[in-house]
Amino acid sequence: MLYSKLFGKTIKEAPKDASLISHKLLYQGGFVRESTAGRYYFLPLGLRVHQKIQKIIKEEMDKAGAQEIVTPVMHPKYLWKETNRTTSVGFELMSIKDRSEMEFVLGGTAEEMMVDLVRKFQLSYKDLPFNIYQFSTKFRDELRARGGLLRAREFMMKDAYSFHATEEDFKQEYENMKQTYTRIYERLGLKTLVVESDNGYIGGEYCHEFIVESEAGESKFLTTEDGSYSAHEDVAVFEVDNKNLEEEEKSLKEVEAVRGTTMEDGVKLHNMPLWQQIKDVLFVDEQGRFILAIIRGDYDVNETKLLHLIKAYNLRHATEEEIRNKIHSEPGFISPVKIKEGLEDDLELIIVADKSLRSIKNAYGGANKKHRDLFNMNIDRDYTADIEGDIALAKEGYIAKNGQQLVARKGIEVGNIFQLGFHYSSKMTGATFTDARGEQKPYYMGCYGIGIGRTLQTIVELGHDAKGIIWPADIAPFKVQLIGLNLDNEEVKRQADEVYQKLTQAGVEVLFDDRTTAGPGEKFADADLIGLPVRLVVSLKSNGQIELKQRREKETKLMELSEIISFLH
Amino acid sequence: MLYSKLFGKTIKEAPKDASLISHKLLYQGGFVRESTAGRYYFLPLGLRVHQKIQKIIKEEMDKAGAQEIVTPVMHPKYLWKETNRTTSVGFELMSIKDRSEMEFVLGGTAEEMMVDLVRKFQLSYKDLPFNIYQFSTKFRDELRARGGLLRAREFMMKDAYSFHATEEDFKQEYENMKQTYTRIYERLGLKTLVVESDNGYIGGEYCHEFIVESEAGESKFLTTEDGSYSAHEDVAVFEVDNKNLEEEEKSLKEVEAVRGTTMEDGVKLHNMPLWQQIKDVLFVDEQGRFILAIIRGDYDVNETKLLHLIKAYNLRHATEEEIRNKIHSEPGFISPVKIKEGLEDDLELIIVADKSLRSIKNAYGGANKKHRDLFNMNIDRDYTADIEGDIALAKEGYIAKNGQQLVARKGIEVGNIFQLGFHYSSKMTGATFTDARGEQKPYYMGCYGIGIGRTLQTIVELGHDAKGIIWPADIAPFKVQLIGLNLDNEEVKRQADEVYQKLTQAGVEVLFDDRTTAGPGEKFADADLIGLPVRLVVSLKSNGQIELKQRREKETKLMELSEIISFLH
Repeated sequence: MLYSKLFGKTIKEAPKDASLISHKLLYQGGFVRESTAGRYYFLPLGLRVHQKIQKIIKEEMDKAGAQEIVTPVMHPKYLWKETNRTTSVGFELMSIKDRSEMEFVLGGTAEEMMVDLVRKFQLSYKDLPFNIYQFSTKFRDELRARGGLLRAREFMMKDAYSFHATEEDFKQEYENMKQTYTRIYERLGLKTLVVESDNGYIGGEYCHEFIVESEAGESKFLTTEDGSYSAHEDVAVFEVDNKNLEEEEKSLKEVEAVRGTTMEDGVKLHNMPLWQQIKDVLFVDEQGRFILAIIRGDYDVNETKLLHLIKAYNLRHATEEEIRNKIHSEPGFISPVKIKEGLEDDLELIIVADKSLRSIKNAYGGANKKHRDLFNMNIDRDYTADIEGDIALAKEGYIAKNGQQLVARKGIEVGNIFQLGFHYSSKMTGATFTDARGEQKPYYMGCYGIGIGRTLQTIVELGHDAKGIIWPADIAPFKVQLIGLNLDNEEVKRQADEVYQKLTQAGVEVLFDDRTTAGPGEKFADADLIGLPVRLVVSLKSNGQIELKQRREKETKLMELSEIISFLH
Repeated sequence: MLYSKLFGKTIKEAPKDASLISHKLLYQGGFVRESTAGRYYFLPLGLRVHQKIQKIIKEEMDKAGAQEIVTPVMHPKYLWKETNRTTSVGFELMSIKDRSEMEFVLGGTAEEMMVDLVRKFQLSYKDLPFNIYQFSTKFRDELRARGGLLRAREFMMKDAYSFHATEEDFKQEYENMKQTYTRIYERLGLKTLVVESDNGYIGGEYCHEFIVESEAGESKFLTTEDGSYSAHEDVAVFEVDNKNLEEEEKSLKEVEAVRGTTMEDGVKLHNMPLWQQIKDVLFVDEQGRFILAIIRGDYDVNETKLLHLIKAYNLRHATEEEIRNKIHSEPGFISPVKIKEGLEDDLELIIVADKSLRSIKNAYGGANKKHRDLFNMNIDRDYTADIEGDIALAKEGYIAKNGQQLVARKGIEVGNIFQLGFHYSSKMTGATFTDARGEQKPYYMGCYGIGIGRTLQTIVELGHDAKGIIWPADIAPFKVQLIGLNLDNEEVKRQADEVYQKLTQAGVEVLFDDRTTAGPGEKFADADLIGLPVRLVVSLKSNGQIELKQRREKETKLMELSEIISFLH
């Protein structure tokens, strides 16, 4: 490719809203342009990288036995109603009607489409298992698009879906995909951590994210020194330490407590430890149910865990007015003790207690009245929970199950794998196969995603220096940037053309900077910015030879064309 | 690939609404499935063909100097408003809002998106010309989806857009693309005709369709025996023969005419030739303007030509009520003579006369009153037109410019190329480059499309027999269908496995029918239906050798594996 003919050349300015270096470099290097916020054009250089990443993913998916297909972009909305996801996905889902008023959605994932396809076939257990995948544009109506390709509203995803007769069979494929993903990221030059995470609106019981550690990432996760445990903040668990369980239970008493409404105000007034105080957080879910989450005072509530326990998908904090008028309590003085007394019949209040409340005795906290506190609250005796479980947010320094301290990390999620189980096949009618006994059984499913644009930008975020991008050889848009200097000299021009042609004939992908309008400084800077693995220079100075420099290294050396060809193979 | 593991096997039933053999075969062979009407899944076999077609197109486009990019799927609607296409494309355009109420469209073509990208760059004449293309899903909200992939509501298109400093430069690229398309279709095994056609809502002044002759097609075109002239019915021109120009003009007279409202009624009543009668057709366009199209009685009005002349994009016939109450005329008795007298001030009536009215004298027809006709109407003397031009529909038997008779044909449009000129760059602000004198000039543009799914189905429509599909070798999903019979015999099984492995190792794409549950008849029928170029059979009967049969031929022969490998290379 002649640089003079390339559509989408380098540029000095960066987008004003670009805070990440990878976003800036992809723009300045001529890889991408934004259309509207979060929707990107891929220019020739960017698309070449995108396609090379796709090719690696396809090779590994095919090697793993998966089969590529493609689904329509517009998903009939009735499918998403079958699985109730029109409500659970909420605002991120885009709806559209055709001229006959039929409703469609632009999907962020394609579980329903894949199940709808598979159930068109009369499958028997002999047809299972299989794994079908596609490369397709996904749509997420993000509130804020930011970070370039890291959080886009439209992006290409490789999404795979596997169908199994049994859970055991699925588990093999889950392991197969875990290994396949690891190989894919290795080939892309990325070091990933496999992190337990939340399945969100996808459903299912467990899943893992593939995370590349980076300060640019939005995924907060916790890991132990030896890496044997890694989990997203949303799902991370830890060991609760027992506090004063040896104490005897004292009698409940109510006292005057003229204090502010924070936990610290309670600690200060009573001069007692934070952990002995009960933290009460009142939420309202999407069905209008009130949820009182209670937890040991030194812990925080993890809303994701709470959502799972109560089987809801959205929470907001109750307003002060609701606390007073609906619950008949007082902001800053809420208590689980007797809180359900006097509620109106149609008001549903669910008390969810974190298991950490079993690690303390004689707790203190509000009394559901202003400026009144309770002492010596004990679970089972003074209050009970509708649901008891783990709703605690893990933090750095807490102790993991393996006895090691948790360490907090940030990273970019570049892929994920999900157990879906019967989540979709049980909700969609006819999503069954005939088992060996002739009975209809739902498929056991899994799904597996990789965001291509995000992976591409992550590679840049991790692979650059002050001068520009440093592409791994396998996905660089071209292998070689050939720079011609002094091209007004006929001999040099002839030599440069020859090098370009011979390399191209030898199957090397070359971007030939043949501009006569740019000086050496500009050409070198552009080569560093674009970041191809090898830079070759032909000039008067190179005197019939060719100067070679690798992007990752500093030294240059003069070589003959034949040497270069064998070096590049 | 093992057939036993293939997702999407053959099936006996065909879709109820499938009238075309190609639609049926693609369904029965396991290539595609419909989601909702006009939106298709491509199964593994179908996607392989689709990707091979794409690869050929990409190779030829790259060879022709075009550069691949990709645009977002959702086009901001304000771009389409810049060019006024939100109205001209009408119902086929799908609109969607994001959560911030920003409007987008799902595009059927991407001119605005491409211009919006290109104008982000400060281009000079040195950066021109270039041709950028993409493979992307296109959306057309068709009233009726039919014919499988031939008229789908979603489909992948290769769409290319070229940008030039001058018309001369554009013309070279138009020729370049014409030749590139011809090569592409040749490689796909399709014989195409390059047919002048209408540019529709794309705009511009001229364009050509690449048409494959087929009764299944919806494109009606006319061509001459020697093929030197081919044009779509919408735009075809012909030579008007002069009738009675030697006659002297007689005086206009009104007569009683108790007759029906058809042209034939006039002929019968007055016993005069059809060609001497004036045909008057009253339309209403999208702006509410009345359009009176008048033409020689033996010709029909071509609405596409009419639309271009009046610069409108939609026509409907005027109702009887409108003819009476608005135009003060009478259905079946309309005449251009004095029709504008007495119209209300705010009513716009445009008289468009076909040039064929200059080939007759002393015409007859209605008198704008019930049961009254006029004799001896002559253009210029008795009536004038606001616009005069060619609005005649060409038909088989008419004489083309080259003196030969036109012949009517039907075909499938598989691609098209458009001159756009300044159609977009003049409407979109900043769509300019700096010319050699430093002045800002709009780009001169062209665009070039190929529908992949439609091309794929056309290949099947043209390439099949009673038993199934016959794929051209270069785009067959696999090169070889290997059938194993008597696989319960260990020796045969071992041999079949060996053939499969050795061929695969030799780089041959093999679909191995390894089923033990299907008999020979079923396996042979499936192979014929799927239509791979070469069928190999390993069985007890083949006795250590392998039976080879080409899909296009009848003979089988026994060969050694080594012979087969060299045959396949």
